[in-house]
Amino acid sequence: MIVDSLIEDYGGNMFNIEPIKDKVMVNIADVRDESSMLYLVKDKDYIFNLAGQVSHIDSMLNPYIDLEINCRSQLSMLEACKKNNKNVKIIYAGTRQQYGKPDYLPVDEKHPVHPTDVNGINMMAGEWYHILYNNVYGIRAVSLRLINTYGPRLLLKHNRQGFLGWFVKQLIDGEEIKIFGDGNQIRDFNYIDDAVDAFLIAGASEKSFGNFYNLGGTERTSLKDLVEIMIDINGRGSYSIIPFPEDRKKIDIGDFYSDFTKIKNELGWKPEVSLREGLQKTFEYYKKYQGYYF
Amino acid sequence: MIVDSLIEDYGGNMFNIEPIKDKVMVNIADVRDESSMLYLVKDKDYIFNLAGQVSHIDSMLNPYIDLEINCRSQLSMLEACKKNNKNVKIIYAGTRQQYGKPDYLPVDEKHPVHPTDVNGINMMAGEWYHILYNNVYGIRAVSLRLINTYGPRLLLKHNRQGFLGWFVKQLIDGEEIKIFGDGNQIRDFNYIDDAVDAFLIAGASEKSFGNFYNLGGTERTSLKDLVEIMIDINGRGSYSIIPFPEDRKKIDIGDFYSDFTKIKNELGWKPEVSLREGLQKTFEYYKKYQGYYF
Repeated sequence: MIVDSLIEDYGGNMFNIEPIKDKVMVNIADVRDESSMLYLVKDKDYIFNLAGQVSHIDSMLNPYIDLEINCRSQLSMLEACKKNNKNVKIIYAGTRQQYGKPDYLPVDEKHPVHPTDVNGINMMAGEWYHILYNNVYGIRAVSLRLINTYGPRLLLKHNRQGFLGWFVKQLIDGEEIKIFGDGNQIRDFNYIDDAVDAFLIAGASEKSFGNFYNLGGTERTSLKDLVEIMIDINGRGSYSIIPFPEDRKKIDIGDFYSDFTKIKNELGWKPEVSLREGLQKTFEYYKKYQGYYF
Repeated sequence: MIVDSLIEDYGGNMFNIEPIKDKVMVNIADVRDESSMLYLVKDKDYIFNLAGQVSHIDSMLNPYIDLEINCRSQLSMLEACKKNNKNVKIIYAGTRQQYGKPDYLPVDEKHPVHPTDVNGINMMAGEWYHILYNNVYGIRAVSLRLINTYGPRLLLKHNRQGFLGWFVKQLIDGEEIKIFGDGNQIRDFNYIDDAVDAFLIAGASEKSFGNFYNLGGTERTSLKDLVEIMIDINGRGSYSIIPFPEDRKKIDIGDFYSDFTKIKNELGWKPEVSLREGLQKTFEYYKKYQGYYF
């Protein structure tokens, strides 16, 4: 069963499940709706808990909505499991944003957390509720701290959910890409299939529960190099490098790439899809289905 | 001005300000009341932000109330300052509970945070909102991570706000003290005057803002030794050592004592009142004013 609120601007898109629509049940509900969650968690073996407000910028503009979705709703989902399904296994989508601006690179799980925006703080609390309910109530839960994840089925209507998807949209639309800063910021990326594998592997392993794991990319790339690969794949395109807008500069984290040794050693996950291969699939998808995304 | 909700069971007690009642204004309001906070933060130079739900046990029984008070209200207080008083300086009361069960001792500020109860998670988020608003909006804020704080004017009507006060009450009442575990758990303690000094020093120093600091005690003591000192001061008393009740065992953190080198070096604070001296003053106070506390 898929549960989604389909809040406009948040990313839910019925076209995303077109190929599997006869195989899944869809239930439209908001994770803030406590009574629905109380019912929906019943008799499930796994909950892949990806519900969340994910925009850093939006979290600064309205911290209360971010708090309701990323903290209060996580608590009510866990309370629902405690009441109605103590045997469920929960795989929670955390974020590298919990770490904030890195003290050292690559960032491993021992790195202190010091998030730079409301979203990072609330996601951190959401992760800890899961670990806590695992430790105190025996509701098995694991958190994966996602890096920049990309691929088919992203929200591309606006630019508040990550820059990579937005760049794809701009290139296909023939718009000039604007890179903030100097273009030398280094990041790592996961193609969606690798991220999905991590969720399945974490859920299938008993020893994952009570832990949190970094995901990490096949390679580390500057934004400028990323855009040049993207232009190459797209066949055309241009970019300019401009100073950070004030609202984004304040929450920017500079270079970030993660050390994913822990999940590799303990659960056997590693990313398989190279950046070029993943981007090729991404461009193919959006060129084919553009009308459903932007 | 003192703002307090006077919620029964939370600790507010008008008798506490009897000696200074002609020198302070008192405003009864709940920190969850956004419109009142919006007004009350105006034209203040300092906010000593001690408002909070502080019971670990209560936070597990009702995580939503803890979330409302320790997360949402902290956000709305900061939003109020952002709107109506950007020049204020805020001194936030954090807690050692943010660290959870220590990985090493003494615990310094580099120690990872992994709280063991809902209260610790929410206090951690509350602290980070302050650091964030300091960094992003320039609203000066500093957090002190308090250890066990004791002395006159505690709530002693129930045992959900810390064991030390409860032991004092039991000894004065001639009841047997019950120590959970084996009695060898080590803790450190701050007499209230030392904690107050830390708030004043942190508020008066420009360089404190944007930082968090551990407080720490003059000495480290096992619970059994603590109780023996208390019995000695009280002149009589007895204790037994019993296993942890299930609800408390799950959130217990074992030994804890902190390294307060950072605040000592950067701000010049250190605890001055020895445990014996502080306990003597504490017993004197409650014996004299017992009727106002239990």
